[in-house]
Amino acid sequence: MPRVVVDVMLKPEILDPQGQAVANALPRLGVNDVASVRIGRRIEIEFTGEPDLDRAREIADKLLANPVIEDFTIHAVEADESVDAHP
Amino acid sequence: MPRVVVDVMLKPEILDPQGQAVANALPRLGVNDVASVRIGRRIEIEFTGEPDLDRAREIADKLLANPVIEDFTIHAVEADESVDAHP
Repeated sequence: MPRVVVDVMLKPEILDPQGQAVANALPRLGVNDVASVRIGRRIEIEFTGEPDLDRAREIADKLLANPVIEDFTIHAVEADESVDAHP
Repeated sequence: MPRVVVDVMLKPEILDPQGQAVANALPRLGVNDVASVRIGRRIEIEFTGEPDLDRAREIADKLLANPVIEDFTIHAVEADESVDAHP
């Protein structure tokens, strides 16, 4: 079934302590070539009929993102593009 | 700067109470054509040099995803494709 994906990330000027914690852990794994890590949310919305981007934008605005500190983008994906199998 | 994006979602057979709560709130907004909502994480990793997908996969395996209950996918994006402007 086709889905709409909403990606919500903190605005670039907002500190991301969760991402910073991951970035700080990387040298202990031997990873020294990462400049930054930012952690946000990915929301998959499955519609009963045709995927509706405007409707998804309305949902994101009202329920999924905090516009004071977060930006979001919206795009439609086919079912087989979604994250449902280990790469 | 080019980035690697890791999308982490709960496996389809794992219940997602957070997504269910959003789905249950939608009829009160007048939205009745959504079948399901699943909420996962989107992690943006910025490398100091070339983006390294294998390195990103290692980081995701060790730090970002719980392979017992989550699947993840990895892809490289150009900086201007990332979520940094309201649509």
